[in-house]
Amino acid sequence: MEERRVVAGVFGRLARVVALVAAAGIALSGCSAGTADVENAAPAASAEAPPAPASVEWKLVTTWPKNLPALGTAPERLAQSLDAMSGGRFQVRVYAAGELVPAFEVFDAVAEGSAEMGHGAAYYWRGKAPVAAVFATAPFGMSAQEMNGWLHYGGGLELWRELYAPFGVMPFAAGNTGVQMAGWFNKEINSLADLNGLKMRIPGFGGEVLQRAGGVAVAMPGSEIFTALQTGVIDATEWVGPYNDLALGLQDIAQFYYYPGWHEPGPTLEALVNRDAFDALPADLQAMLETACRAINQDMLDEFTARNARALKALVEEHGVAVRRLPDDVLARFQELSEAVVREAATDDLSRRILDSYYGFLAEARQYHAISEQAYLNAR
Amino acid sequence: MEERRVVAGVFGRLARVVALVAAAGIALSGCSAGTADVENAAPAASAEAPPAPASVEWKLVTTWPKNLPALGTAPERLAQSLDAMSGGRFQVRVYAAGELVPAFEVFDAVAEGSAEMGHGAAYYWRGKAPVAAVFATAPFGMSAQEMNGWLHYGGGLELWRELYAPFGVMPFAAGNTGVQMAGWFNKEINSLADLNGLKMRIPGFGGEVLQRAGGVAVAMPGSEIFTALQTGVIDATEWVGPYNDLALGLQDIAQFYYYPGWHEPGPTLEALVNRDAFDALPADLQAMLETACRAINQDMLDEFTARNARALKALVEEHGVAVRRLPDDVLARFQELSEAVVREAATDDLSRRILDSYYGFLAEARQYHAISEQAYLNAR
Repeated sequence: MEERRVVAGVFGRLARVVALVAAAGIALSGCSAGTADVENAAPAASAEAPPAPASVEWKLVTTWPKNLPALGTAPERLAQSLDAMSGGRFQVRVYAAGELVPAFEVFDAVAEGSAEMGHGAAYYWRGKAPVAAVFATAPFGMSAQEMNGWLHYGGGLELWRELYAPFGVMPFAAGNTGVQMAGWFNKEINSLADLNGLKMRIPGFGGEVLQRAGGVAVAMPGSEIFTALQTGVIDATEWVGPYNDLALGLQDIAQFYYYPGWHEPGPTLEALVNRDAFDALPADLQAMLETACRAINQDMLDEFTARNARALKALVEEHGVAVRRLPDDVLARFQELSEAVVREAATDDLSRRILDSYYGFLAEARQYHAISEQAYLNAR
Repeated sequence: MEERRVVAGVFGRLARVVALVAAAGIALSGCSAGTADVENAAPAASAEAPPAPASVEWKLVTTWPKNLPALGTAPERLAQSLDAMSGGRFQVRVYAAGELVPAFEVFDAVAEGSAEMGHGAAYYWRGKAPVAAVFATAPFGMSAQEMNGWLHYGGGLELWRELYAPFGVMPFAAGNTGVQMAGWFNKEINSLADLNGLKMRIPGFGGEVLQRAGGVAVAMPGSEIFTALQTGVIDATEWVGPYNDLALGLQDIAQFYYYPGWHEPGPTLEALVNRDAFDALPADLQAMLETACRAINQDMLDEFTARNARALKALVEEHGVAVRRLPDDVLARFQELSEAVVREAATDDLSRRILDSYYGFLAEARQYHAISEQAYLNAR
């Protein structure tokens, strides 16, 4: 019930967005419906297309409201890609949060096999294992590019799969938002002292860091943010970045938009797959699934990169938002606290190996990026 | 003949690397050979796999020496992915530079259809259209993340396809190195004055910028770099980044390794496809090709991110390389000259539209990245 209300609330706030993307959504549905009939269709025009054998039909449950920009539309694109590549043999039907299971039951649904697949973020499953969150992001941790390097060429994906294996769930990286924004504040933050007693909606490791720096971390679903900030129940909130924040309307109720997103510097989104369902797939469909996840993993970041840039311009030029950098002493204190907070998730051998791998890769990548990505951005 | 010598020379310098990756190369060849027989093989174990129809067999010619790390191995991985996803129906055989056509004839081979596919970088085709280079990179231009945003959500890919359409060639983004290094120097660069008369191997727009800043840009194939720098024919050279530079052995003949790679801040590699060959593919293989290119586009950057970081550590700790930042006045002068040099490629309506799109996207992305990627890297 709780989650159903959440979804309904988010739907309300996102009415504008849903209206904008509805046409695209309908087009996607139409496409799926068309290909579902492929078995009974007349032979394809190309002589080389294989006769369609019995198709695989999967359910994909997500933690996102239907058509939530980028985060929610990515699984739709993933399904569309699998449909196209398999010539209709691999049908994946995408369910928004609450349609089949509530957002925070996605992992369990995939583990039990009531859905073969899910899409969400690893920091939602800290109840399963506190260390899981680092496969999404960590405060003062890896950027999107670093996460991708670690997962695919630094041993990260193997560790992630080891962590989820006891649940019968197989994770794939399937999206990234890039560096997020630090959030919306109804007053200016000029020094660490201004955090004292500040009530901010910020979940996970980031919330714990804020708490230790003197603030009050409030846990609250996205749907309640708008009203809570408007009525002064909270003084500040983080959400995602310009593209999603503009859609939620946060510029209408808070004046100060702070950066950088120290608490979520490059969150990886995940596709979850039921292990037995994966093993039962023919090898070609397994390969399509893996490749489609790699493609969507980049596609989402590409979309955020383009649309965040455009949305920031709109926030500043059309809505008069005041963009501010968090003061040095605040950032320094957050950084000082961050690794220690994350390291508390090392509760057994596997979680220690995960964190050693994460921070080991980060140390090397940071040194290289200091003279490449960072040095270049600072030079131009 | 020129190109054949180039390739032979690069092979010589890369003997170490080739030896290291030879085993992997053989494994890939073995895999391809195996799947080529799929039509005559016994029925696959899974009942759901489709009976294999006549397979498509393509040639993929590259601008890279065989098994050149990352740049050269990416097309091999692309072919392997298409083989796996198609259940052997889509066979792509990869040829190193010089095996079928010389490196710099790859574009023409794909245009004429003597090879259905190619892999290289758009700045090799400035002879076709000077503006082509910006689809790879531009001095003081876009980072890898920005290139991907522009190409896939900013109209860049459509313009790229419009540019190549008269040649019957269809481009796809298929790899990225990330920010490169500024290069290897046999003396320190302490100010702009030290560039006077400096002979540096640096091609393209970057070379033109160096020239206008007082240096002497030398065009020279990769194979000749080592000897030229060793014997003092040139004073400096750029190559790629730590992973590739270490393999070429540049640390043995130059002491100073400068950053950042202002001239190549996030080069996109490209897959070229003969348009008629693409149109003749069944729709499912077209979708696989597009998705596999998106996946390899990210995969290469992931590999460079992980391996450059590791190689930098080896260069500094094991080879005693002195890593230095280019002085402020040098970077400022290069930046001042860069856009004007690139804008000279605007010779007709299409090239003007391309450059307006490129610099328009860059302006927005730069503002957003100033408060996200850049601000975060500077805060941590």
